[in-house]
Amino acid sequence: MDNKTLTKELKKNAVIINAALKKFLPKDNSLISQTMRYAVLNGGKRLRPFLVITAAELVGGNIKFVLPAACALEYVHSYSLVHDDLPAMDNDDLRRGKPTTHKKFGEAAAILCGDALLTESFKLIIKSQAKAEYKNIAVGVLADFAGYQGMVGGQVEDTLETDGWKKKRITYLSEKLLSIEAKKTSALLTASLYTGAVLSGANEKQKEAFLNYGFHIGCAFQIADDILDVYADKKLLGKKGSDKDNNKLTALSLFGKEGAQEKASSHIKAAKAVLKTFGKKADILRALADYIVDRTY
Amino acid sequence: MDNKTLTKELKKNAVIINAALKKFLPKDNSLISQTMRYAVLNGGKRLRPFLVITAAELVGGNIKFVLPAACALEYVHSYSLVHDDLPAMDNDDLRRGKPTTHKKFGEAAAILCGDALLTESFKLIIKSQAKAEYKNIAVGVLADFAGYQGMVGGQVEDTLETDGWKKKRITYLSEKLLSIEAKKTSALLTASLYTGAVLSGANEKQKEAFLNYGFHIGCAFQIADDILDVYADKKLLGKKGSDKDNNKLTALSLFGKEGAQEKASSHIKAAKAVLKTFGKKADILRALADYIVDRTY
Repeated sequence: MDNKTLTKELKKNAVIINAALKKFLPKDNSLISQTMRYAVLNGGKRLRPFLVITAAELVGGNIKFVLPAACALEYVHSYSLVHDDLPAMDNDDLRRGKPTTHKKFGEAAAILCGDALLTESFKLIIKSQAKAEYKNIAVGVLADFAGYQGMVGGQVEDTLETDGWKKKRITYLSEKLLSIEAKKTSALLTASLYTGAVLSGANEKQKEAFLNYGFHIGCAFQIADDILDVYADKKLLGKKGSDKDNNKLTALSLFGKEGAQEKASSHIKAAKAVLKTFGKKADILRALADYIVDRTY
Repeated sequence: MDNKTLTKELKKNAVIINAALKKFLPKDNSLISQTMRYAVLNGGKRLRPFLVITAAELVGGNIKFVLPAACALEYVHSYSLVHDDLPAMDNDDLRRGKPTTHKKFGEAAAILCGDALLTESFKLIIKSQAKAEYKNIAVGVLADFAGYQGMVGGQVEDTLETDGWKKKRITYLSEKLLSIEAKKTSALLTASLYTGAVLSGANEKQKEAFLNYGFHIGCAFQIADDILDVYADKKLLGKKGSDKDNNKLTALSLFGKEGAQEKASSHIKAAKAVLKTFGKKADILRALADYIVDRTY
């Protein structure tokens, strides 16, 4: 599948997901509901819902049954952005060219908005149509990958455990960076694939493939993000790049631009390799792997 | 049951819950795990786990089966305190006489600590031993009562939607206050009872009774808290009272001390009335209702 066809598929998917999100989001005029709509309906690429649905379809599931779960993963992604943008964290004023949630509604509202989205995401998981046992497993998968062993843990490591990193040895730093990439970014992408797969009754071999594919595209995605953060057109990106100012531990700061690009490419190669078990049906995920490092924003 | 017997039961319960919490909390030395232990192992009364277990036992369930869910409710309570204490919210430096989580670990760590506890709470729900369908329902119950329609929604109303309240009419304010009490405090107490009940296969009549009991003791609890916040011994309370400084909408500021106490008493009376369906077995919940308004901290 070429990049153009994939982009079309992603856009088609985003239309479906945006309609579903609007259906699931609260419609009343309370402040908390306003913040939730603002944080979620923001023109995102809906990559995580796309992965939920694609994984479900690859193992014989149906988009209709996993649509609430697909939205759940977008809720979790949205909440993480709202909290990451807070002054105490990355202190970002803009996200996709619009004021961040705390800039629009204040810090307290933004903290609570994130809390509400995270809470509601678990409700959406069990709203999916699947065996009760599968839904319980999916709840556990989301908690594991999004929580202290996954995304949140990665955020803590990234933000708070890399002070003075330049004094550490390169082997230690390579491992630390991989741990951050895996938790901060791979975890939620993997959770998306795994949730779609589990809810649709995937077998062990298929689940294993999604685990590995998610890990590798996540690492590549984070490396690409780090490069874009410094080199991309800031207007396209819709936010100011901040990692360079912070002098953070990233693939770019550790390995240089070429070294980082090489790392990303080898992750993409590995990601494609594990898709063999699905045959040609997985071409869309192969194209997605390429897209992740080739995107310009 | 007299107050002394109840206090003994609560203490016995707290010992069991603290042991279970220590078992479920992460044991590694990462920063996120440290913050989670700090926020949860704080000498709390473990009232919510007590309600999970009591409700389960009242409908024929077993403490062993619902212990993870009991801890889940304590996680949610703990996360809500960590986030409420943040500078952008209540800005409290002390909680039960100890530095609040953000004072100890910094704001970013405290925000992520709350996120991690909330996420993990859903994992604990599905770790309980119950039919898969019951666990699905319990996940939904926790999300509903803790989320935007429940606790988080109440927090938003309480913190951000009562500015200039003194200019509003008393009927409007009474309703607004009841909505805040019901969401901010009743919701999680009700969720505790309901979770224990649902996981143990309670019937509709029993669930209905817990819904009403939780609503009334929650309102009474919040009113008692508002009174204690102003009148209690600050050393016993382990924090400075802050509502009076903030001139917030509370039962105390709206109805005066006597009026607020009357409201609390009538909630307690109503709470006891709905327990009829359980007969004498529910004496412990009757004693708890009295304890809630009689406690000194």
